[in-house]
Amino acid sequence: MTPFGEFDFIARFLKPLASGQPGALGLADDAAVLRIDPGEELVIAKDGIVEGVHFLPDCSPEAVAWKLLGVNVSDLAAMGARPLGYLTFVARTSTTDMRWLKRFAAGLAEAQEAWGLGLLGGDTVATQGPLVLSCTALGALPAGTAVRRGGAAPGDVVFVSGTLGDAALGLRVLKGFAVAEDEAVWLVERYRRPQPRVALGQALRGVASAMIDVSDGLLADLGHILDQSRVGAVVRVADLPLSETARHIPGARECALVGGDDYELLFTLPPHRLEGGLAAADGAAIPVTPIGEITAEAGLHVLDANGEPVESEARGWRHF
Amino acid sequence: MTPFGEFDFIARFLKPLASGQPGALGLADDAAVLRIDPGEELVIAKDGIVEGVHFLPDCSPEAVAWKLLGVNVSDLAAMGARPLGYLTFVARTSTTDMRWLKRFAAGLAEAQEAWGLGLLGGDTVATQGPLVLSCTALGALPAGTAVRRGGAAPGDVVFVSGTLGDAALGLRVLKGFAVAEDEAVWLVERYRRPQPRVALGQALRGVASAMIDVSDGLLADLGHILDQSRVGAVVRVADLPLSETARHIPGARECALVGGDDYELLFTLPPHRLEGGLAAADGAAIPVTPIGEITAEAGLHVLDANGEPVESEARGWRHF
Repeated sequence: MTPFGEFDFIARFLKPLASGQPGALGLADDAAVLRIDPGEELVIAKDGIVEGVHFLPDCSPEAVAWKLLGVNVSDLAAMGARPLGYLTFVARTSTTDMRWLKRFAAGLAEAQEAWGLGLLGGDTVATQGPLVLSCTALGALPAGTAVRRGGAAPGDVVFVSGTLGDAALGLRVLKGFAVAEDEAVWLVERYRRPQPRVALGQALRGVASAMIDVSDGLLADLGHILDQSRVGAVVRVADLPLSETARHIPGARECALVGGDDYELLFTLPPHRLEGGLAAADGAAIPVTPIGEITAEAGLHVLDANGEPVESEARGWRHF
Repeated sequence: MTPFGEFDFIARFLKPLASGQPGALGLADDAAVLRIDPGEELVIAKDGIVEGVHFLPDCSPEAVAWKLLGVNVSDLAAMGARPLGYLTFVARTSTTDMRWLKRFAAGLAEAQEAWGLGLLGGDTVATQGPLVLSCTALGALPAGTAVRRGGAAPGDVVFVSGTLGDAALGLRVLKGFAVAEDEAVWLVERYRRPQPRVALGQALRGVASAMIDVSDGLLADLGHILDQSRVGAVVRVADLPLSETARHIPGARECALVGGDDYELLFTLPPHRLEGGLAAADGAAIPVTPIGEITAEAGLHVLDANGEPVESEARGWRHF
C-alpha cells in the first residue's frame, strides 16, 4: 500500500534520521541489518502509545516523537543497555498529514540525538481511528550483564533516581489544575519530555541487583520487582524525592507514590554495593535517593514519617 | 497502564509462546535479550496491520495473528534470513476481549511453529479506534550475505516463486465475487494465510542478485528492485505463474500483475547462477518461474503473448 506520499515521507523526512546507521540500508530494503559486537548481547524493547491514552490529542508532533522514543529508550536504560537504533510504526489518521509527519520526524531527530541512536526502519499505515504509534528500540550490553527485575534480595536498599510525581502533576496541569505559570511550564515539560536515564542505567550494570523504570508509578513498578524477586519491601513516603516545584503542591506525595510517566530508574543495591551505586550515580551526574528496603516477608509496606502504614487505594496508574 | 487483565493475558496466553526463547526472560522484564552468533548479523523487520485496511473486521483472530506474523517473516525471507523471534504490539479495542486475545495467541502459536521462531516480548494498549497491530521480527544470517533490492544487473533473469494473483482473487471473493465453493475456500485461504518462503529465501542467499517479497503487487514490488538497482525490466504476462484455480477466472492475470498480498518471492538471477537458483528452489521444494529479464534501459515493460506492450493503469495496490 502506498498511502499519501509514503515514499516521499520516507525519502524526505526519515532517510536523514538513518544516515548514521549503515544497517538501515538507506531505508530501501525489506528489513534492517545490524552487526552486534562479539561478546555483546542485543536488548530489544517494544512499547507503543495511543492518542487519547498516552498523549493528549493537542500534543505537538515533536512531543509525541520524543515520548515514543523516550519510553522505549527508558526500557533499554532499565536493563543497563547502550542504545543502538530504533524502528517506528505509525498508524496515521486523516489529520496526520505531511506537515504533522515533518514535525514528528524533527522530534525524532532531536530525541535520537539526545540518546545516541539512529533510525533503522519502520512502517507507516493508515487508520480510521486515533493515532497509534509503536517503536522498537535496540540496544546492546556485554553478554550476561543485563539488569533484571528479579534480582532484589532482603536487605537491599531501594533507590530511585531524580524526582518523582512531576509528570503526574504536569498531566494534572494539562487537565486544568492551576499552578503558577513557570511551574506549569516546567511540570508539563516533565510530563511531555521524559529523560530516560541512559547513562545511569549503564553505570548501574553489575552494581544494581534489580532495576525497572518508573512508567506506571512507583508502587506498581516496585511491585514488579517484588513479584519477580519474590520479596517484599518497606517504602518511606517522607523519603520520596520531590522536586522544588512539586514540594509545595498539594497532592505531590500521592503523585510520587502512584503517578506514572516519570521514567526515573528504580533500583536496588545490596549493602556491600552501596558505595559502587552512589559512585555510578555520581558518574552519571544523576541524583539518587534511598527510599526503603527489601524485606524477606512478601508485601509492600508504605510508611509515613512516624512509621505508620499509609493507606493508598490507587496502586496502578492510568495515563489519563 | 494495566488495561483489562494485561498481566493475566501475558501470563496465560503469551508466556507459553515464549517458552522456547530464553531471551524473552519469561516476558517478565522491560526488554528481551538476544545473543547473536559471532559471524552472523541480525535482520530486523517491522510491519503493522490495521483492521479495515489490511484485514476485514470479520477476520478471525487466528487469521489476524497468522497474517501479522506472516508479513514480517516474509520480509525476513526476502533478505535471506533465518527467523529467530518476534515482538508484538496490539492496540486493542472494546471488542478485542480476552476471548479474542486467546484465539489470537493460538494463531500466533500455530504461525510461530510453522516458521520456527518464538515470542520475545511486546506491548498491549487500548485504543478507541480500529484494531491496530504491529510486529517486529528478528532473524539472522551470515554477516554480509543479506540479499538486497539493489543488486539486479542487466541480463539477469526475473523469477517469482509459487503462483501470483490468488490472494487478490481471494479478497475479491470475500467482497462478493462469485466462484465455485471449493475455489472460494482455497482463494480466501491464500489471501488470509500467506506462506512466507522462508526456506527458499535462505537457499537463494549468495545466489539471487536482488530479492523482494510480493506484498504490494508484482509491478510495484519489481519497481522497487528496479529503482534500487537503477535498471529496467521486461515482464511477459503470458509467463506469469497462475494457479490451477486462478487460471480460468476472469481477471486473474490482472490480479497477478497488480494484486498484492501473495507474499511470494520475486528475485533476479544472473545468467551464470541460473542453475544454482533452480537448485535452491528444488531444495526448498518451491516452484519458481522465469517471467522476464532485467534491462540496462530504465522502465518496466509489460508484454503480451505477441510481444506487444500491455497497458496497465493500476500499478500500485491498495489492500482493499
